[in-house]
Amino acid sequence: MAIVETQKSFDIPKKYKAVIYDKPGTLSTKVEELDTPEPGAGDVLVRITHSGVCHSDLGVMENTWRGLPYPTQPGQVGGHEGVGIVHKLGPGAENGRVKVGDRVGIKWVAYACGACPPCMEGKDGVCFNQKISGYYYPGTFQQYALAPANYVTPIPDALSSEDAAPMLCAGVTTYSALRKSDAKSGQWVVIVGAGGGLGHLATQIGARGMALRIIGIDHGSKEDLVKSCGAEVFLDITKYDDKTIAEEVKKATGGLGSSAVIVCTASNKAYGQALDFLRFGGTLVCVGMPEGDSQPIAKAYPAAMVAMEHNIKGSAVGNQREAMEVLDMAARGIVKTHLRIEKMDNLTEVFQQMSEGKMRGRVVLDLQ
Amino acid sequence: MAIVETQKSFDIPKKYKAVIYDKPGTLSTKVEELDTPEPGAGDVLVRITHSGVCHSDLGVMENTWRGLPYPTQPGQVGGHEGVGIVHKLGPGAENGRVKVGDRVGIKWVAYACGACPPCMEGKDGVCFNQKISGYYYPGTFQQYALAPANYVTPIPDALSSEDAAPMLCAGVTTYSALRKSDAKSGQWVVIVGAGGGLGHLATQIGARGMALRIIGIDHGSKEDLVKSCGAEVFLDITKYDDKTIAEEVKKATGGLGSSAVIVCTASNKAYGQALDFLRFGGTLVCVGMPEGDSQPIAKAYPAAMVAMEHNIKGSAVGNQREAMEVLDMAARGIVKTHLRIEKMDNLTEVFQQMSEGKMRGRVVLDLQ
Amino acid sequence: MAIVETQKSFDIPKKYKAVIYDKPGTLSTKVEELDTPEPGAGDVLVRITHSGVCHSDLGVMENTWRGLPYPTQPGQVGGHEGVGIVHKLGPGAENGRVKVGDRVGIKWVAYACGACPPCMEGKDGVCFNQKISGYYYPGTFQQYALAPANYVTPIPDALSSEDAAPMLCAGVTTYSALRKSDAKSGQWVVIVGAGGGLGHLATQIGARGMALRIIGIDHGSKEDLVKSCGAEVFLDITKYDDKTIAEEVKKATGGLGSSAVIVCTASNKAYGQALDFLRFGGTLVCVGMPEGDSQPIAKAYPAAMVAMEHNIKGSAVGNQREAMEVLDMAARGIVKTHLRIEKMDNLTEVFQQMSEGKMRGRVVLDLQ
Amino acid sequence: MAIVETQKSFDIPKKYKAVIYDKPGTLSTKVEELDTPEPGAGDVLVRITHSGVCHSDLGVMENTWRGLPYPTQPGQVGGHEGVGIVHKLGPGAENGRVKVGDRVGIKWVAYACGACPPCMEGKDGVCFNQKISGYYYPGTFQQYALAPANYVTPIPDALSSEDAAPMLCAGVTTYSALRKSDAKSGQWVVIVGAGGGLGHLATQIGARGMALRIIGIDHGSKEDLVKSCGAEVFLDITKYDDKTIAEEVKKATGGLGSSAVIVCTASNKAYGQALDFLRFGGTLVCVGMPEGDSQPIAKAYPAAMVAMEHNIKGSAVGNQREAMEVLDMAARGIVKTHLRIEKMDNLTEVFQQMSEGKMRGRVVLDLQ
Repeated sequence: MAIVETQKSFDIPKKYKAVIYDKPGTLSTKVEELDTPEPGAGDVLVRITHSGVCHSDLGVMENTWRGLPYPTQPGQVGGHEGVGIVHKLGPGAENGRVKVGDRVGIKWVAYACGACPPCMEGKDGVCFNQKISGYYYPGTFQQYALAPANYVTPIPDALSSEDAAPMLCAGVTTYSALRKSDAKSGQWVVIVGAGGGLGHLATQIGARGMALRIIGIDHGSKEDLVKSCGAEVFLDITKYDDKTIAEEVKKATGGLGSSAVIVCTASNKAYGQALDFLRFGGTLVCVGMPEGDSQPIAKAYPAAMVAMEHNIKGSAVGNQREAMEVLDMAARGIVKTHLRIEKMDNLTEVFQQMSEGKMRGRVVLDLQ
Repeated sequence: MAIVETQKSFDIPKKYKAVIYDKPGTLSTKVEELDTPEPGAGDVLVRITHSGVCHSDLGVMENTWRGLPYPTQPGQVGGHEGVGIVHKLGPGAENGRVKVGDRVGIKWVAYACGACPPCMEGKDGVCFNQKISGYYYPGTFQQYALAPANYVTPIPDALSSEDAAPMLCAGVTTYSALRKSDAKSGQWVVIVGAGGGLGHLATQIGARGMALRIIGIDHGSKEDLVKSCGAEVFLDITKYDDKTIAEEVKKATGGLGSSAVIVCTASNKAYGQALDFLRFGGTLVCVGMPEGDSQPIAKAYPAAMVAMEHNIKGSAVGNQREAMEVLDMAARGIVKTHLRIEKMDNLTEVFQQMSEGKMRGRVVLDLQ
Repeated sequence: MAIVETQKSFDIPKKYKAVIYDKPGTLSTKVEELDTPEPGAGDVLVRITHSGVCHSDLGVMENTWRGLPYPTQPGQVGGHEGVGIVHKLGPGAENGRVKVGDRVGIKWVAYACGACPPCMEGKDGVCFNQKISGYYYPGTFQQYALAPANYVTPIPDALSSEDAAPMLCAGVTTYSALRKSDAKSGQWVVIVGAGGGLGHLATQIGARGMALRIIGIDHGSKEDLVKSCGAEVFLDITKYDDKTIAEEVKKATGGLGSSAVIVCTASNKAYGQALDFLRFGGTLVCVGMPEGDSQPIAKAYPAAMVAMEHNIKGSAVGNQREAMEVLDMAARGIVKTHLRIEKMDNLTEVFQQMSEGKMRGRVVLDLQ
Repeated sequence: MAIVETQKSFDIPKKYKAVIYDKPGTLSTKVEELDTPEPGAGDVLVRITHSGVCHSDLGVMENTWRGLPYPTQPGQVGGHEGVGIVHKLGPGAENGRVKVGDRVGIKWVAYACGACPPCMEGKDGVCFNQKISGYYYPGTFQQYALAPANYVTPIPDALSSEDAAPMLCAGVTTYSALRKSDAKSGQWVVIVGAGGGLGHLATQIGARGMALRIIGIDHGSKEDLVKSCGAEVFLDITKYDDKTIAEEVKKATGGLGSSAVIVCTASNKAYGQALDFLRFGGTLVCVGMPEGDSQPIAKAYPAAMVAMEHNIKGSAVGNQREAMEVLDMAARGIVKTHLRIEKMDNLTEVFQQMSEGKMRGRVVLDLQ
């Protein structure tokens, strides 16, 4: 627990340390000293103390993620799961919700306009004018960052900063997907990739935070983790083919199939299996984004979807309200990320491990 | 208007005329005399006066519809848009909703159990124990048919029987799809195949019955029909390629894209275009079922669906409540099928025209 | 656990024992022998083994419940939480969902037509043609009862009959109210009367079955019970006035107020307090029905409801789907009624205790 | 139609004319010259050309509205239905949605924070940090006003400024109430006070914009107006008592009752009748706020609400999205306010007529 004494003012240095992508397109980061910026109209200056490291950061740095339109530029500061303390308010931010000394978070969507069609429908996660933390907007792998006063995310007192960080992307993304699934408490939901970075949070949030009944699917080595996260049933993906794994889901759900499937892995094969897990009227929620040439979801046949009244939904990063709700769950001890703390100098090495698939759990950088 | 005087009893002949599929797998029908059946427990005997002829009937007769598990048997009476008068009640039907003399409809789902999971969620259109009119259950191309007392559909007094018939399948199917689209009044909806049997009803129901703004897509020859049905915008499918037609939809909708697309045609190409018509968070509803080898919806890419938070929904035939709602719209003059009346002896010829793509509007058999 | 071996046939006696209201309008019951009825079309004969005793039964017997239009007649068999085994099928029930030997439940709404407007909207709990078990339709305080094959409620194998019985009225009623509240997992819900027959189930269902955060309100003596049912916060109604109890709810909910309030007690005073517990947009769900002269909810002021965008909803007994869902929760051990078993000869005494307010928990009659 | 040529810059005078409340608590206004303000961070300066005059303005001026916590101060500029042109952007507003030359509206909620719980649920109409135009925040009865760049409401090109003005309060309030009613297209909705300032808009929006079937209730003199607005049925309130008017609603709706009732009048008597108009599961939406001592809705009896599963909802002014949706309906010619134009010097007289109940339709001030 980390109750922060609200201070009236802070000493702000002229320069501070940041990790930049010095050679985007390759796996390379460099710690540099930057000039501390002044917060503009409506902005606050945040002293970042912790930032989660997400697989998307790797994709942004290496320019391998096809979803992003432009190549990352040298000098880009990455990171989008930042937690820190507000050190200074820009003009017009004085009357806002946050005060100097507040602990706040910065998310993938660092800025949402609040006025475009998605924002007006509470879908600020797909804001037309969004700025993305760590991609063409300075991210959270640095000691000071600017952020809009009315869009930073308050961090609950009862939650440590390191535990809060991964909630700001992985947590809210999976929580939002579970909400979009329309699965009601007591219904069965399959989490594909239940032992992964997203999946182990989805499993906890679903099972403990939303009273859903979870079937976790992953490699056998993840069984203990997935069950400890609250899954009632675990299926080892290596032991079944497309047909028999669907039969197992049917069996576990009393013959009906699950109400929803959340695909947390970036695997076309996983998407190809998912529709067969569903009961009539069930919903497949897309979270993981397969790389490489685009492939449609293999069994998204109109006739089959009609016959079963199946649904498919794409779910992006979630909105601000969902971020606060999942942080509240974390503060209540319902969901906890498996993480380890690293120093900012080690970020290249962290990405190296991630790139080689050797990462266990999530890394949070200590930027203090 | 056809207000029916409720009679206490009817003379019921020993034998009556029915059209049967004498050689399923081929295009062939035959009028035969059958013994009038006695209604069993919970059933009523309906004197059918009109039955719509639907494209699905052709598929059932010719065994070309892959969605159906078993081949149709010789002697099958087809038809699933039947309207007639209740002539007799079986045991246990006396205390029900219908009385002798009531005018009622029989739909594709002729019987739903009311007790399975879909039925309990109001999805009787996908009832696990459904009996399908005209496929392994005697249909409505006959003068007398049995039907469950608590599942026949009451026909509003103000609606003629010939106008009611097509509402029982084409009408409720498109209405249900529009409801499932979650499009709100004032929002844009694209109807693909807007001049077809389903599409021209969807256009009327959407534009006049639900206050949606309709963009109709079809061949240029259908423009007048589609506009007369209430579409604000018509796009001639032959004038655009996949890219430019999406641009036209964007332009018509103020740059955003449409809130929903209802694909009423059985065309993989149409499905491949549909997702590009949608705005963020929009919904593609599948109604038409392409024949031949199953193809997934061509652009159902997980990453694209995530980025746009798009939805895809399969929609089957609708439920009993929706049937009554669309019949009410028809009774109020909001939706009217383009149809012509034929005698039962002409059914083979009607199927012939349908098979050759020469059918204009819908045919309703007069079985009086 | 009580897995029932399905039998092909049962010996059915000519006569059996039932408890009747011999002097309706007074507190009096009598055990009599009745002729075993034959199941009619669509019905089944159920050998009742257990029946819960509900406060409504007392009201029906004594004719004190104003909600019921006609006085109860001598000879009425009461009871509406019956569990037993199907011993015989009537004509037309053979093809249905239940088989001889199945264990099933009979609820307050013993029969719903499946075809009226409420039924078509999944609101069979307010079916226009409903038959009420134990009021102008023979109830479940007897060894044999008739019930419609497609409307008896299947009992999960893992649930004992005595534990199932109270779910059929108290359980489904509170579960339905919680669903109607629209409270989402993680949100605060106040249960008024949290230690009572309905309230202690609402607390368990909400806290454990739906992941809601429960504030229980009741007399101080109920604190242990309410907390053991899963309430996070308990407020002793005797320690606060209208103003201070609302302040306590605000405090417990971080200043906002609760998302919903379920009033399980039949108290006008409780209703008068409830709206002040709610946050903006919150929902008061009415379950308890105060007796005596009707009083409006004291603070249902239009201007206040507008300013806070508050909602009030009346919730009746729930539908068949909800009954099955709450039985599933009971089978999974999430909700368990505090009950004791009594013989049918003791029913008068049971009502006596109930009438004097001495009842602790719920009584289930053993009719074996 | 009023397509505005976007200009790069405007000559802004040092002083401009405003109407102030010189003696709040009495009916008195005065035209004064004020210094033109500079837009602060995130704000824009709007050259107001038109402002609707709402009954709430009268209540604010005279301090007769109990919903407002503090007495209005001398010098307050009233008005909250303002339309004008953006003449200047404050710091931080340059990157926003609006540009100099855009035509925009200012609503009752002139500022919403975008970050409080209601804002995060899309309920910015009840924002915790809202600033109210014309009450402790300068209103729209003046030639220049400041407003937040991201919360002014864009006005569609096809809509004249005088027609837009009343949509910003009366229009969005009734539209939001109709949406909250959950009435679906094709269902019956009763508008109480259908000929009044709110009601005649609700009738048009419901009938033409949402395909609802409207029953309008008002004094007989309003029959022509109400029917011309699209009501299918008109009931003259003076011809019925509480019982017979409910019977008329039942009759008009085929015996069931209406799906919703929107009470647009500030009358306790109207609220007392409204619940009896509803079918099972129907919803009463509170819009009108009776003055004087608070009275609960007379028939909001818990037992009756349970038996009928009735709902009551309070609806405030609607949110920004709804404002844009109703402006779009107005631009499409679906809804049009009955209004007359007055000069700002005549505002006292306008309030005088309003106070004496002599106002016909709505007044829009021309501030050019």
